[in-house]
Amino acid sequence: MSAYIKRAVLAMQGYMPGEQPADPGVIKLNTNENPYPPSPAVRKVLQGIQAETLRLYPDPLGRALRRKIAELHKCSSDSVFVGNGADEILALCTRAFVENEGAIGFFEPSYSLYPVLAQIRGVRSLPVALGPDFEWAMPASYRANLFLMTTPNAPTGIQYPKAKIRAFCARLRGVVVLDEAYVDFAREHCLDLALARPNVLALRTLSKSYALAGLRLGYAVGSPALIAALFKIKDSYNVNRLTQAAALAALGDQTYMRKLVERIKKTRNWTATELKRLGFCVFPSETNFLWVRPPRLKAHELFSRLRARNILVRHFPGKRTQDYLRITIGTPDQMRALLSAVRIISKKDCFP
Amino acid sequence: MSAYIKRAVLAMQGYMPGEQPADPGVIKLNTNENPYPPSPAVRKVLQGIQAETLRLYPDPLGRALRRKIAELHKCSSDSVFVGNGADEILALCTRAFVENEGAIGFFEPSYSLYPVLAQIRGVRSLPVALGPDFEWAMPASYRANLFLMTTPNAPTGIQYPKAKIRAFCARLRGVVVLDEAYVDFAREHCLDLALARPNVLALRTLSKSYALAGLRLGYAVGSPALIAALFKIKDSYNVNRLTQAAALAALGDQTYMRKLVERIKKTRNWTATELKRLGFCVFPSETNFLWVRPPRLKAHELFSRLRARNILVRHFPGKRTQDYLRITIGTPDQMRALLSAVRIISKKDCFP
Repeated sequence: MSAYIKRAVLAMQGYMPGEQPADPGVIKLNTNENPYPPSPAVRKVLQGIQAETLRLYPDPLGRALRRKIAELHKCSSDSVFVGNGADEILALCTRAFVENEGAIGFFEPSYSLYPVLAQIRGVRSLPVALGPDFEWAMPASYRANLFLMTTPNAPTGIQYPKAKIRAFCARLRGVVVLDEAYVDFAREHCLDLALARPNVLALRTLSKSYALAGLRLGYAVGSPALIAALFKIKDSYNVNRLTQAAALAALGDQTYMRKLVERIKKTRNWTATELKRLGFCVFPSETNFLWVRPPRLKAHELFSRLRARNILVRHFPGKRTQDYLRITIGTPDQMRALLSAVRIISKKDCFP
Repeated sequence: MSAYIKRAVLAMQGYMPGEQPADPGVIKLNTNENPYPPSPAVRKVLQGIQAETLRLYPDPLGRALRRKIAELHKCSSDSVFVGNGADEILALCTRAFVENEGAIGFFEPSYSLYPVLAQIRGVRSLPVALGPDFEWAMPASYRANLFLMTTPNAPTGIQYPKAKIRAFCARLRGVVVLDEAYVDFAREHCLDLALARPNVLALRTLSKSYALAGLRLGYAVGSPALIAALFKIKDSYNVNRLTQAAALAALGDQTYMRKLVERIKKTRNWTATELKRLGFCVFPSETNFLWVRPPRLKAHELFSRLRARNILVRHFPGKRTQDYLRITIGTPDQMRALLSAVRIISKKDCFP
């Protein structure tokens, strides 16, 4: 039967998204979702949807939504692409900007989807190892046709210095995609780089700061030439009517989004302090999660013991990541439950 | 700037979907949408959506929806894939089942997206010309790694003999995708072929018979090995929460869908008779549209004159299609308006 399937696809594993447990009793701190509901404007727009309009195809160009995004970022609609989640846009970039003999680069560790995207595209991966403390480290002679960079990075939560990013974009003879999924939780962003340079796209998502992971809406901002290439190869109607309408409403309520972000940052900073007090190594986070190394217990051991207590965090096997956990920032109550579980597990561990 | 874009993407045109006019006064018979609203169950489920659940990612495997589809078609969930419209699944097939040196086949004329998908994938197209009356015509020695077949065909509305399809699937050393977008309006389907053979997938959509083009939900049924390959290379969360919920509701109301289909078939048969009376050549349709050759006036001329009267049908330029129009079946009122406009235009044309 395998004769029918492309060899590279047969050989590959596929990306494994974080667990989505059906049990509502689980404290879910594993996929960087927002613990708060989306803007009330989203609920309102969904309640007002005329179901009969669903008989018609959506606007294939997502014009109203792109105008709104252009207005937010003070650019032209021609500089904006909307996708079925930022994941769709990442996959489109691998098909628009890389020849079959080309190569796709990314930091290691970073979003674990990137090497899978290179496999799907059937081109070489050229990973760049981050420094010992996961800091920026880029060989001077580095070349790739497309470089996918999560900034602030996941799973480490660290933001790279903008000057380094700028210099890299100016030097690379290829497209740099700055995946700013977490940027609303950070001090600065690189959207100006994307609007100024012919080879840079900035990616944003409504999954994190807007609390709309279930809606699937990501967007890219950058030079009209790169954006036009994405339009040529996308599925005709890639963003459905409901998502277009709800995303427009969410983007229209910046005040609410900012409020959520401030609340999460406050919880993040408090949780970081408490974890440090418990002996964790906590990396400086510019995101809605913490990258931590637990004391005493192995990371995967702590992961399992938290899991047994219905608290789900994320553990990534692999040499560079196996000693760490990534913990999404939930509500203060959820973080208190996490800390209390950690204290109990630690005690048991110390005095068995 | 073009240095950043893949050469084949730079060179290509992109698919041009049918016009989606903003003016609600237009009688829209150009993209085969259903003129009736979707099942009341869809409205109900949308109204009941808890907006706060949108903060969570959707089920990446679409399990509840796939179970429902499996139940409908009396197969296992492992034989079912769900996508962001059938278009996404078609694109995934070009990446899962064709090596870089491979080729993609399709009939000509057929869905005009197919050659674009081959361009996007960067592989050869091997079109097969249909017979003089758009009937099945397949060279005995024909080979391709993937054959995309709309059946009943668009834009012609004709259903191919099932025995021909079966024999072709048994002979081809490649994957055959039977795109059954319109099959609910036809006499027979080929789902049993997909479930019986290791190299066949049947594609279905909620865009036509379920009146949900705006929702974006397509699905594939076939051997678990082919389905597993699609899962490996799809975007992690390709079907959003709202679409999963609404599609589940729509598929649960088969009685309503059958009622819409019967109504549209009745209008189709009546419209066909009337157009024949006006001198049109009307092909036998097993779909929700008619493929017609107008008398006297050139097809594109009639297209423009209807357009001027706010009636939008579809005209495909190109040698094999330029003499025809594709007319979506609307409500009886819309078809009466079409017929009346055709009569007025014809009169003007005969006695200027």
